[in-house]
Amino acid sequence: MRVAIIMGSTSDLPKVEPAVSILKNYGVEVDVRCLSAHRAHAGLSEFIEEANNNGTEVIIAAAGMAAALPGVVASQTVLPVIGVPLSGATLDGMDALLSIVQMPSGIPVATVAINGSKNAAYLALQIIGVNNEAVRLKLQDERRDMEKAAMKANEEVIEKFKY
Amino acid sequence: MRVAIIMGSTSDLPKVEPAVSILKNYGVEVDVRCLSAHRAHAGLSEFIEEANNNGTEVIIAAAGMAAALPGVVASQTVLPVIGVPLSGATLDGMDALLSIVQMPSGIPVATVAINGSKNAAYLALQIIGVNNEAVRLKLQDERRDMEKAAMKANEEVIEKFKY
Amino acid sequence: MRVAIIMGSTSDLPKVEPAVSILKNYGVEVDVRCLSAHRAHAGLSEFIEEANNNGTEVIIAAAGMAAALPGVVASQTVLPVIGVPLSGATLDGMDALLSIVQMPSGIPVATVAINGSKNAAYLALQIIGVNNEAVRLKLQDERRDMEKAAMKANEEVIEKFKY
Amino acid sequence: MRVAIIMGSTSDLPKVEPAVSILKNYGVEVDVRCLSAHRAHAGLSEFIEEANNNGTEVIIAAAGMAAALPGVVASQTVLPVIGVPLSGATLDGMDALLSIVQMPSGIPVATVAINGSKNAAYLALQIIGVNNEAVRLKLQDERRDMEKAAMKANEEVIEKFKY
Amino acid sequence: MRVAIIMGSTSDLPKVEPAVSILKNYGVEVDVRCLSAHRAHAGLSEFIEEANNNGTEVIIAAAGMAAALPGVVASQTVLPVIGVPLSGATLDGMDALLSIVQMPSGIPVATVAINGSKNAAYLALQIIGVNNEAVRLKLQDERRDMEKAAMKANEEVIEKFKY
Amino acid sequence: MRVAIIMGSTSDLPKVEPAVSILKNYGVEVDVRCLSAHRAHAGLSEFIEEANNNGTEVIIAAAGMAAALPGVVASQTVLPVIGVPLSGATLDGMDALLSIVQMPSGIPVATVAINGSKNAAYLALQIIGVNNEAVRLKLQDERRDMEKAAMKANEEVIEKFKY
Amino acid sequence: MRVAIIMGSTSDLPKVEPAVSILKNYGVEVDVRCLSAHRAHAGLSEFIEEANNNGTEVIIAAAGMAAALPGVVASQTVLPVIGVPLSGATLDGMDALLSIVQMPSGIPVATVAINGSKNAAYLALQIIGVNNEAVRLKLQDERRDMEKAAMKANEEVIEKFKY
Amino acid sequence: MRVAIIMGSTSDLPKVEPAVSILKNYGVEVDVRCLSAHRAHAGLSEFIEEANNNGTEVIIAAAGMAAALPGVVASQTVLPVIGVPLSGATLDGMDALLSIVQMPSGIPVATVAINGSKNAAYLALQIIGVNNEAVRLKLQDERRDMEKAAMKANEEVIEKFKY
Repeated sequence: MRVAIIMGSTSDLPKVEPAVSILKNYGVEVDVRCLSAHRAHAGLSEFIEEANNNGTEVIIAAAGMAAALPGVVASQTVLPVIGVPLSGATLDGMDALLSIVQMPSGIPVATVAINGSKNAAYLALQIIGVNNEAVRLKLQDERRDMEKAAMKANEEVIEKFKY
Repeated sequence: MRVAIIMGSTSDLPKVEPAVSILKNYGVEVDVRCLSAHRAHAGLSEFIEEANNNGTEVIIAAAGMAAALPGVVASQTVLPVIGVPLSGATLDGMDALLSIVQMPSGIPVATVAINGSKNAAYLALQIIGVNNEAVRLKLQDERRDMEKAAMKANEEVIEKFKY
Repeated sequence: MRVAIIMGSTSDLPKVEPAVSILKNYGVEVDVRCLSAHRAHAGLSEFIEEANNNGTEVIIAAAGMAAALPGVVASQTVLPVIGVPLSGATLDGMDALLSIVQMPSGIPVATVAINGSKNAAYLALQIIGVNNEAVRLKLQDERRDMEKAAMKANEEVIEKFKY
Repeated sequence: MRVAIIMGSTSDLPKVEPAVSILKNYGVEVDVRCLSAHRAHAGLSEFIEEANNNGTEVIIAAAGMAAALPGVVASQTVLPVIGVPLSGATLDGMDALLSIVQMPSGIPVATVAINGSKNAAYLALQIIGVNNEAVRLKLQDERRDMEKAAMKANEEVIEKFKY
Repeated sequence: MRVAIIMGSTSDLPKVEPAVSILKNYGVEVDVRCLSAHRAHAGLSEFIEEANNNGTEVIIAAAGMAAALPGVVASQTVLPVIGVPLSGATLDGMDALLSIVQMPSGIPVATVAINGSKNAAYLALQIIGVNNEAVRLKLQDERRDMEKAAMKANEEVIEKFKY
Repeated sequence: MRVAIIMGSTSDLPKVEPAVSILKNYGVEVDVRCLSAHRAHAGLSEFIEEANNNGTEVIIAAAGMAAALPGVVASQTVLPVIGVPLSGATLDGMDALLSIVQMPSGIPVATVAINGSKNAAYLALQIIGVNNEAVRLKLQDERRDMEKAAMKANEEVIEKFKY
Repeated sequence: MRVAIIMGSTSDLPKVEPAVSILKNYGVEVDVRCLSAHRAHAGLSEFIEEANNNGTEVIIAAAGMAAALPGVVASQTVLPVIGVPLSGATLDGMDALLSIVQMPSGIPVATVAINGSKNAAYLALQIIGVNNEAVRLKLQDERRDMEKAAMKANEEVIEKFKY
Repeated sequence: MRVAIIMGSTSDLPKVEPAVSILKNYGVEVDVRCLSAHRAHAGLSEFIEEANNNGTEVIIAAAGMAAALPGVVASQTVLPVIGVPLSGATLDGMDALLSIVQMPSGIPVATVAINGSKNAAYLALQIIGVNNEAVRLKLQDERRDMEKAAMKANEEVIEKFKY
């Protein structure tokens, strides 16, 4: 199992790292790259070409502002590309969200929430899980754990507000 | 190959049909359903349960306004769920976009452009293509055709503006 | 008198507690729950079913981001459901507001202001007051007190800016 | 059973009439008024006073642009007030939505979707239903019919896309 | 010369006080009031009636969120009403701006910038100045001083960036 | 009585004419001009200079898109300047609204609703009315007529929905 | 003199043609291309390389939705790149505007108004004019004509509203 | 080589200084001015006139809120004018962006990102570079350095996430 994560700038690292952890926890080999669509054009194309041929199953691309990165990646591969809009100094990430999600017909980017790199990882795992029963079962387990944790939190809330 | 497409209302049909055509053109068996998260709660859960067990690989969910459908589907499956925000009578689909894309951690929805059902279909195919070489190659062919068509359009534009 | 308050996440507790206090101050029995529409699907449905049959008069649901909770609750009850959009890390709660207020025909959610859980409590009391004279009178008293406090604040402002 | 519906301008009539029909269909006595908060100040206050004393259970107020009407009504009654933001010539009703939903603490307005007068009627019925079993049962029946219609639409969609 | 300044809540005081200072500096008698359109309905109407009859020339009304105050004031007087949208906890004052500026035909509110109470004071003075030469001349003097200060700031900037 | 109305482009004429009619109906001498801040810079300054010295009491400036006109006018006069944001081909006038209302301290523009030229005229009349009893009384009469018309419309609505 | 105009799709042609006419009217050699950043990646890079070496002075890039085109062009040249955001089926071009203007440090795109291809042409001419006196003088002439036309329109408006 | 930078207020200095540094680093003579369109009208016109005749090649204008400055500058010159929208106390600079970018036909402003003064400097250099090979080569060098730095950052990221 192999997933590539590309961010546009090293300042995005703290927002991207949670995705790496989640994927590694599933035993996925993660190729993390910092390759701006605007500043590392050639390096980016080279890496996508590599990813297209080394068994990478999903590419996650995270970027802020005029976030061209996910779309540019998507235009050079038929692997599923997941876009993570990052919030920057102004506009709360709305600029990145629209720059990533509003792709033209034929070149989709699977967009997740603003700063939603965790969900990018889970979405990548769900895509891998389509043909990988172990991953699918582990995801189902984690969902069950999530639900149990939710129900436990609920119990604590009930307790807290008991008369 | 099997993909489910769920829309929230029959009035969404014209916006959803292009996705069905694209998928069928790839030989995908498409289960089309009209199951609102708010009006067909039980029927929706039943269908997701079914999809979880009949080999469905991807679920596409299209909805407008307070578009809970994709998220509600995503909460009941670990299959990849693609959300299509539909524009309604007001707000240009911004309400649906935010209702679909801003999912909490753990339950991702792969969101595409407003009214972007074609891209939902292509994204589903790209997901299937991760483990299906025939689909992947056909997608690559189509991309090449798309590029050729783009270059042909470019030639025509050049011709048109020739001195 | 019985009101249920459901929040989507325990992190919402500080924003929800003011509603609990207001309701208890009126002698309302308050069932507080933490049941995400996306993470505690079955538990949520079970609780709504319970609320539908234990004399609950109003359900308040508070959630942020792609806030499906109030709508999902509303789809499973004909009790009045009050939705409280919560602001999250980005977008100032505009995502939650649109996700809650833009419900389709037939399934209303009574939406209050972003982070407006106090008003959710007052709205619940006003609904109870429709058939409960004691509550209605107490609300009228509180309004009169509110008006008196407002007029007293006005006197202080007049005093402050006296020549 | 008695519900008041106030609109700000006669041009709002077509957007308000569906609410009247729904309510009458439940046997509710409906007092329809056209009383702008800005142009019929005294008449509005007089009517609210009347509604406060003639057994009115819910007040629906629909207005566009700087839609002060629902809030002004809410400030003069402890009856539940439902606000319907109407779209006007520009801004798609976003101005009315924010003018209605963002009420200060103590004076809630139960806001429904932009142009959502049908849901205002259903919300009024749900509020009445809190203490009126007949209405509650009829609402549950209608929900069941709605669900049946939804499932029937689903069957037709299934049929339409059958191979 | 007499100007009334009404704010919706005492928490608005720090945002309103600069307007009081500017007006007093021009020798204007300023009646400052804290009278919410929603919480001090009767007191507000009484004060507007008073202002209509005591030689008040302009009314400034500052409010946040669903800022009905300026419009409600405007509906009860033919004196010029200046509205100041205040930013609150979320939405950056966009809610107040739209609630104040989008008034229906016949009842204008002269809206200034978000948190722009200083400009509300200057606008009030400019309105008074239409028929008061002393005020008009003092405003022109202040404009000239403002321009001089601007040109002096420019000189400092030139100096700072000198080679 | 003299009011100047400046529009940025002759295409704005239909949106501006209602203001002219209202003002003329009050016996106001109206100087209508088409002087873009960007395309008729010198002519605009010349006209403002003229208005500053010919007894003009109020200047109305209507413009769309990056609507600099009202602010540029305001910077060259201490007469009250009323800004009318006009909607253009895209963005529903939100660009013009923000370009007009968000003025810096010291140079206010009295902003009315998007396309609200009628209210610009009424606001101009209210400003003139501060020192002109005849205008003030006529405005009060018109308000009373407006209220009577509103109450008459209300009667018709009552009649229409009578049982 | 040489300017390249690149559009993302042939459907953008009607919005781009006015720029071609303006440039040709100044004797500029215009290379018009239709090269999507997403669908004609290689062809686009090839053309930019060509433009970098054939004396092209400015590149205009027009695109809608997730408008990556201008930024992708800008990342492959140090020629000035002018971006024209185009409005599409929804969102009024706000998506394209943010996708184009919010570029990261080091790679600017000179953004003009939504659908503002005429201004893209004039900006290109102004850039050429920096070192081309003939163009600069012709632009100044056109400005003077524009001002004359504006003053003539003003005369007509004055005439129209004469008493 | 000569570039003028005009800001609307001395409080904008910290946001403008990075542009000065970049330009000086290229040997450009920079004329920095603080000349508000609204508060230093005459001084601004005088300076633009000066810039039109002293060999200035590009004018950068930075302003916040109702940012008329860049457009007013543009209307008085045929030199390329670059507009930098600055974020202020509210609205995240969206007001300034729309006030700057939405210019009418004939008077373009080359708009860069919110607070994007660095890119304003680079864009000015790219414009100068059209006819100045040394600048163009230095820009190309800097781009290569930028790309090298980006690739180096990429190496560090690869290293950091190595297994």
